[in-house]
Order: sequence, then C-alpha cells, then structure tokens
Amino acid sequence: MYSDHATTSLDPVEQLMLELVRQGTGDVGRAAAHHLSAGGARIRARLALHAGRALGRPESESIAIAAACELLHNASLVHDDLQDRDERRRGQAAVWYRFGDAMAICVGDLLLSAAYAALGAAGAGTARLSVRMHRRIGEVIRGQCADLALQGSADVSLESYERVASGKSAPLLVLPLELALTLAGKEEAVPAAAAAGSLFAIGYQVADDLQDVTQDAAHQELNIVSVLAASGESDPHQRARELAILRFRQAHAAATGLPSGSGELLATQATQRADRLSRALEPA
Amino acid sequence: MYSDHATTSLDPVEQLMLELVRQGTGDVGRAAAHHLSAGGARIRARLALHAGRALGRPESESIAIAAACELLHNASLVHDDLQDRDERRRGQAAVWYRFGDAMAICVGDLLLSAAYAALGAAGAGTARLSVRMHRRIGEVIRGQCADLALQGSADVSLESYERVASGKSAPLLVLPLELALTLAGKEEAVPAAAAAGSLFAIGYQVADDLQDVTQDAAHQELNIVSVLAASGESDPHQRARELAILRFRQAHAAATGLPSGSGELLATQATQRADRLSRALEPA
Repeated sequence: MYSDHATTSLDPVEQLMLELVRQGTGDVGRAAAHHLSAGGARIRARLALHAGRALGRPESESIAIAAACELLHNASLVHDDLQDRDERRRGQAAVWYRFGDAMAICVGDLLLSAAYAALGAAGAGTARLSVRMHRRIGEVIRGQCADLALQGSADVSLESYERVASGKSAPLLVLPLELALTLAGKEEAVPAAAAAGSLFAIGYQVADDLQDVTQDAAHQELNIVSVLAASGESDPHQRARELAILRFRQAHAAATGLPSGSGELLATQATQRADRLSRALEPA
Repeated sequence: MYSDHATTSLDPVEQLMLELVRQGTGDVGRAAAHHLSAGGARIRARLALHAGRALGRPESESIAIAAACELLHNASLVHDDLQDRDERRRGQAAVWYRFGDAMAICVGDLLLSAAYAALGAAGAGTARLSVRMHRRIGEVIRGQCADLALQGSADVSLESYERVASGKSAPLLVLPLELALTLAGKEEAVPAAAAAGSLFAIGYQVADDLQDVTQDAAHQELNIVSVLAASGESDPHQRARELAILRFRQAHAAATGLPSGSGELLATQATQRADRLSRALEPA
C-alpha cells in the first residue's frame, strides 16, 4: 500500500493544467490561469495521484488523470459561481465578478475542454476514460440544476438534501478513483468507489453548511441546519454534526475496501474530518 | 472521389448525439435534446462524413467525428446566444430565453462534454483527436471573446473584421476535416484544410452580414457593411458581396487540393455560395 501522500508534489499537475489552458487562448487563457493560481486543496488531484500509484500505474498517466479531474472541478466552480452569483472564491474575486459574465462562460468552457485534453496523455486508454468522464459530468450538471431548483424552497426533506449534496459533488470526487481503477482494469470496484465518494460528499456538504449557517440563512440558501430545524429537530446543529460524522465514517469504511489501498487517501480524509467534528461535540 | 453527399443520411449522427446528451441527465438533457431538435444545416457533420468516406475510414469513426463536431458547434451556439442575448435560434426560442441563464450554461457544458465523449467511439485514435479538438476549441473561445470585445466599437478595420470572423467560426469548420485527416494519417494536409476553413468562414460571415444589415445597424452589432462604409467605400454592399465571392472562390481552391477529395464537399459548398452571390450582382 502506498501511503506517502503527504509529500506528493503537485507541480507536474499544475504545470500540465497551465499548459492546457494557455496554449493560444489569449485573454481567456490568462483569466483561466488567474483562477487556477488561487490554488485550493487540490483534493481531486491528490486522490488521483494516490490511487494511480497504489494501483501501480505509470506516473504520467496519474498526472493526466489528476489534471483532468482538477480542471473539471475548476470549470464547475467558475460556472457555479456565475450561476449562484457568488462574488468570492478562495479569497479572491470570482471570475464573473472580476472579468464579466461572458468571460466566465468562456473560462469555464476552456477549463472543461482542457480536462478532456488532459486525458489525451493517457494514450490508448483515453477513449474509455472520456466516456466515463462524460457520464460523471452529466451527473454533476444534473445535480447543479437540482440544487438551483431547491434554493429558496421552504420545505426540503433530509432525503432531498442528501440527494442534492451527493449529486453535485460526489461525481467529481469519485472520478479520480474511477479513472485510475479503469486504467488498472479494476472496473468492478467502481460502484464501491462511487458509494465512498457519495458518502464523503454528503459529509463534506453538511460540515461546510455548519460553517455557513448564519450567512446561508441571510441569503435564504439551502443549509442542513434549516432543513433539520424545519423537520422539527430540537438541536439541529448537534444533529447535523452527528450526521456528518456518520457519513464520513461510512465513507471511510467504503473507501478502505477498494483494491490495493487505492481508496486509502479518501479514507484518511474522511476519518480526519469525522475526528475533527467529534472533538467539536465534546464539552469544552 | 466520393461525391454522393446529397443522399447522406444523418440519422446515425443524430442518434449518437441524442444518446450522449440524454443518458441520466434529467431536465438538462431534455433541454439539450430540445435545442438539437431544431435541426440546422448540420454542415459540420456532413463535412466529417464526407471526408471520412473519401479517406476510406470506417463509417463508425466518421459518425463519431461528425457527432463530435456538431455537438461542439451546438454548445457554442447555446453559450453564444446567452452571451449575445440573442432571443431566437433556428425559428425557436434560444435556450437561455426559454429555460433561463443557469440552464443555458448547463446545456452548453453538457453538449461540450458530449462532443468529447463522441470521440470515444474512435477507439485508439481518441487521444490524438482530443488534443486537436481542444486546440480548436481554444481558438473558438478566443475568437468569441475577440468578437464580444469588438461589438459596439466604431472603428474596426477590415483586417480586424476578417480576423474575428475567421477566429470564431473557422476552427469548428476545419475540425471535421482535421479529425478525419488525422485518423487517416494525413496530418500534413491540416494546414491546407485550415486555410480553406478560414476563407470559407470569412465568406460565410460576410454573406450572413449582408442579410442582417438593417437589424445589425439597429443593435449596433458588428457588420461588414458598416466596416466598409466607415473605411470610405462608396458602395459598401457591392464591395461586401465581392469580398464574400472572392473568399468563397479561394476556399474552393484550397479545399480542392486536399487528399483523396476529402475537401470536395467544402469546395462545393463554397462554389455554390459564390455563384449565388454572383447572380445577385447581375443587373435584374
């Protein structure tokens, strides 16, 4: 099992992403590079590099997958920020806010296209990866629309909340594992990876909502705390924390079972998040 | 030389496009299918099918390329209409006008992703095609931004006009030929195909502008007639017609030289358009 992920360098991934958005694209490429320069946790890139190595794949292939997943995630952020009119992203102005709506559409399109071009580095396996990536992108787009449709609605069930949280985030968390498993000929493990990604995505969204309760309430945005409060929970904060912990623990269990330790990084991430939330539950 | 293009059935291309946008995508897929149902000339699909056959490629490969180019073109239409706030497209409401801005962004993203998935049907060649397609998409996006930047500006040179007209349309006209030539191992012919596509795109834009003179003037949109009028031409309509004819004749010459008659359909299209404009020049 490969577990040296803490020291993994993302430099070749960052380099590939920049190359793909900068080639002959002028102002749009510069705006895309500006967006990418704000960084982020690059969790999808790390998941891909880790899974690729755990499965014994060539490094160039893992870098290609990592760049593809990260470019895709950033494409979705640029278009989501425009759709949601979120003005800030990673401490800087969102692309639409800084460069205008038309440019934000172009930047997101460029990042999406670059994601597929990154898969080109996987050579003969590219066709299979492209088909799988398209299916996950379809899920994400459907999830984003479902999310937009639920915003501002007063009566959202916990089930709807979880479906939306999973729908808009799980596909791109699953993708790094799915692509690495596909190249390794372990397609039979993809459903387990999908389950782990879905549980993680729900835990992540609930934890994120817990940090944004006041802000979301002010903007009438969907938040787990208001969903639980509306369903009659007496302590919705506490209940939300317990839910996030449960989903993270379940994600850990599902990820641990993936072949050759390919899900180990996702499992570790889930456990760390569950532990952090558990400590917050203890009396001070 | 293959020349039976008049009877070419587009059914398998339409079917592949619908399959790729409809798989598990809910409302977004339905909106994308609605957009595709309005039809269009499908000139890019026809160019791909024709070139693939002329070069002796398997039919399934040509269908894949045809669907990819047409999906891409439609992705650009959906996003361009939103950016330009054009309310109508092919006699029906534009996607943003009918389904809202957020949905239009999602539909364009889905069509763009589906274009790459279509290339997956080309099997082992997919990687090379994806990389080439991404380069052309980068050009189109850059061209669209250049076009938006020029809108409303008073002093546009003929050279700028031609660069923008070529930049936003030529890449996706070249792509069907480029992908077919690439799969046939005739990459050396791609620059000639690019020249033919660029000349055709300029002729096409000028001819299109000639039909929209009044409307464009009312909306202060870039139009060849106002560009030529501003440069001091005494009969800008006549001069514009002559320019379109010249570019179509040049496109014909460049397309005719492509290997195995692969550019024959583009050449025919160019000649037909030049002839039509020539007849309009004759005294009634």
